[in-house]
Amino acid sequence: MIKVVAKSKIKPECTEQYKTVVKELIEETRKEAGNISYTLNVSKSDEYLYAMIEVWEDQKSLDAHLASEHFRRIIPQLGPLTEGGSPLEIYEELI
Amino acid sequence: MIKVVAKSKIKPECTEQYKTVVKELIEETRKEAGNISYTLNVSKSDEYLYAMIEVWEDQKSLDAHLASEHFRRIIPQLGPLTEGGSPLEIYEELI
Repeated sequence: MIKVVAKSKIKPECTEQYKTVVKELIEETRKEAGNISYTLNVSKSDEYLYAMIEVWEDQKSLDAHLASEHFRRIIPQLGPLTEGGSPLEIYEELI
Repeated sequence: MIKVVAKSKIKPECTEQYKTVVKELIEETRKEAGNISYTLNVSKSDEYLYAMIEVWEDQKSLDAHLASEHFRRIIPQLGPLTEGGSPLEIYEELI
């Protein structure tokens, strides 16, 4: 199983716009084969620090997501709403 | 729902010991009320970077975990096997 944590520091004035745009990404991604969980989360210590926390069946399904039409279309819309984008931390489940 | 990401940079010579000790913590934690998921994961880009990725029903169940006998007993054993411990990043699920 593959996990992804993608943290984004949101520009405070862009919070509502970020949530609106990311909602479409979430809805489309949850329809994908191999997606087990795909959620938007907010830090308990920083109201502008968000994290997508994702669970995928395998690397193949994550690769298909990263190549999907909705990912390629929506991610460039989210970047300017954040400080520094949303780098992916990718993990493999051990135990 | 509450998510926790706790990253640890493991000392290379301590990898096997870390996995042995953390296994008991995982087994005990999965028995706790309110724990939905509690897994050890390894970074795809750094074989010594591990992350506990956790899902809890609510803050109350996470607080009970942090106060549990097994957490208080096992975490001090893990610290010396890492570079800098395992700081908790705590999130609340939004969408």
